[in-house]
Amino acid sequence: MKKKSRVVIALGGNALQKQGEVTAEAQQKVAEKVGRLIAKLSADYEIIVAHGNGPQVGNILIHEESASTKQAPAMPLVTAVAMSQGQIGYWLTQAIDNALIAQGKRKPVASIITQVIVDRKDPAFKHPSKPIGQFYDSKEAIKLIKARGWTMKEDSGRGFRRVVPSPQPLDIVEKHEIMTLVETGTIVIAVGGGGIPVIQTKVLKQLKGIDAVIDKDFAAEKLAELVKADIFVSVTAVPYAYLNYNTPSQLKLGRLTTKQAREHIAMQHFGKGSMLPKMEAITQFAAKGRGRIGIITSPEQLEKALKLESGTIVQGK
Amino acid sequence: MKKKSRVVIALGGNALQKQGEVTAEAQQKVAEKVGRLIAKLSADYEIIVAHGNGPQVGNILIHEESASTKQAPAMPLVTAVAMSQGQIGYWLTQAIDNALIAQGKRKPVASIITQVIVDRKDPAFKHPSKPIGQFYDSKEAIKLIKARGWTMKEDSGRGFRRVVPSPQPLDIVEKHEIMTLVETGTIVIAVGGGGIPVIQTKVLKQLKGIDAVIDKDFAAEKLAELVKADIFVSVTAVPYAYLNYNTPSQLKLGRLTTKQAREHIAMQHFGKGSMLPKMEAITQFAAKGRGRIGIITSPEQLEKALKLESGTIVQGK
Repeated sequence: MKKKSRVVIALGGNALQKQGEVTAEAQQKVAEKVGRLIAKLSADYEIIVAHGNGPQVGNILIHEESASTKQAPAMPLVTAVAMSQGQIGYWLTQAIDNALIAQGKRKPVASIITQVIVDRKDPAFKHPSKPIGQFYDSKEAIKLIKARGWTMKEDSGRGFRRVVPSPQPLDIVEKHEIMTLVETGTIVIAVGGGGIPVIQTKVLKQLKGIDAVIDKDFAAEKLAELVKADIFVSVTAVPYAYLNYNTPSQLKLGRLTTKQAREHIAMQHFGKGSMLPKMEAITQFAAKGRGRIGIITSPEQLEKALKLESGTIVQGK
Repeated sequence: MKKKSRVVIALGGNALQKQGEVTAEAQQKVAEKVGRLIAKLSADYEIIVAHGNGPQVGNILIHEESASTKQAPAMPLVTAVAMSQGQIGYWLTQAIDNALIAQGKRKPVASIITQVIVDRKDPAFKHPSKPIGQFYDSKEAIKLIKARGWTMKEDSGRGFRRVVPSPQPLDIVEKHEIMTLVETGTIVIAVGGGGIPVIQTKVLKQLKGIDAVIDKDFAAEKLAELVKADIFVSVTAVPYAYLNYNTPSQLKLGRLTTKQAREHIAMQHFGKGSMLPKMEAITQFAAKGRGRIGIITSPEQLEKALKLESGTIVQGK
């Protein structure tokens, strides 16, 4: 029997939430679709699922911050990320379980709380850039800057929002545990929301959580490297990455070498915070060589893309 | 080399939170102590940690409910349990990791999001009894009963609280995944807060979350059975279970047969919602026979208790 290809799938926000439908029930409905897809693919591939948590952790923070009291103080961002891993991990696990039950093919599925190591000296800590949580007026913002040491930025006329650092993922604390599960045939859900960001203290190398948000595609790419995946896929709303996106000369990108992909990145064809990190992540993965493949595709095209019949595909040598 | 004994440790609330110290920082400090203990014990035992979540899920619900809006609706109890598994699972994982790092003995540690199956027809669903979340005045309570179908009860003059069912755990969805990790030497954290309660739908056997709270000791005992543990320990604030507790004739319980334990239970020596479920759980485990041992002890006495030199110990034939 041919060994199954190992695939890390990074699910974007749209794969977990329809616009404006944010109740638990509505999100679980969306997760059910993803569950059926993953269950189906698991017949032919070893699958590890990574996922975003933007809207979910945003809402957790809104609740935590706006109802914070001395008896029930708000949890910090780093713990809120862990809470969102529990929340979304549960929804995805159950959705995949149910799809497998419906197909009459039980298979192990596990969601692992995942810590991701970042560098204390990552330049991102000097330049917090990722907006998170609720909007505040200028008076509240000033109070929070003083009381909590937050960095706040005005957000397109809608008020002030906290911005947090978005450091690069260096290592995944639970990589061996994830590997153990994958190698025994388990569908694993990991590095939710880019992982819980932790630094290592200088002398004692102790892990310590830090308020930051790791880009989900970079964290998933790091995981794909560490578990020796064959394919890394970033699943998003559109089936391809494009040149000149949303212009009359828009051109969809099919198969690319890492060199071509890097050229398109350098030419600034891709939106910061949307397609750019995805292109960077799949290119970085493909560049690790030995036939590794990075893909951008939509949920609808994922199955074809894994057969290299759709999607933007970057292939290493 | 002698095979290590496999131990399931159920941690009570006091092992995770000091009275009134409820910030994330304070709770992580408490978790650090637990982490050092587990790391030390892991040299001699295979360890699976189960934990409570009462105060934590209570605070999550307070935040979710009191800051619920259309744009950021409150998550239901079942999802809040999943969130608390992420939160506490992260704290415990990191605490154990750090203790192992400090000892220079890295070892795999993983926290698994865990669903626990309960019976749709469990009589508990007809008699919700477990108070959860915040207090409401009678007007708000009536509104919530109508709008959400909640059962509310007056709680010792402090207002009205939601009460939820506390059904018996029947099976653990992730038992095989937990077993895989344990058998490869991983310290596993599982069934947090008694697990995420799920029922199976009648015809299609689909898993479906349900608003309930499973007793942490019963869920941990079920896990101990399923992973074929040698020892099940319920760790609590006191080093023993007692007869005539808090009276002049108080008598600490040392070693007991399952028959003796059952007699003490029948004589109503143990407090409902505190020592009773612990005594029932360790007795049930011991009754599974083949040398299985159930223990009640405090964190301070845990190491001695595992050598059967302290604690209330119920032993099967």
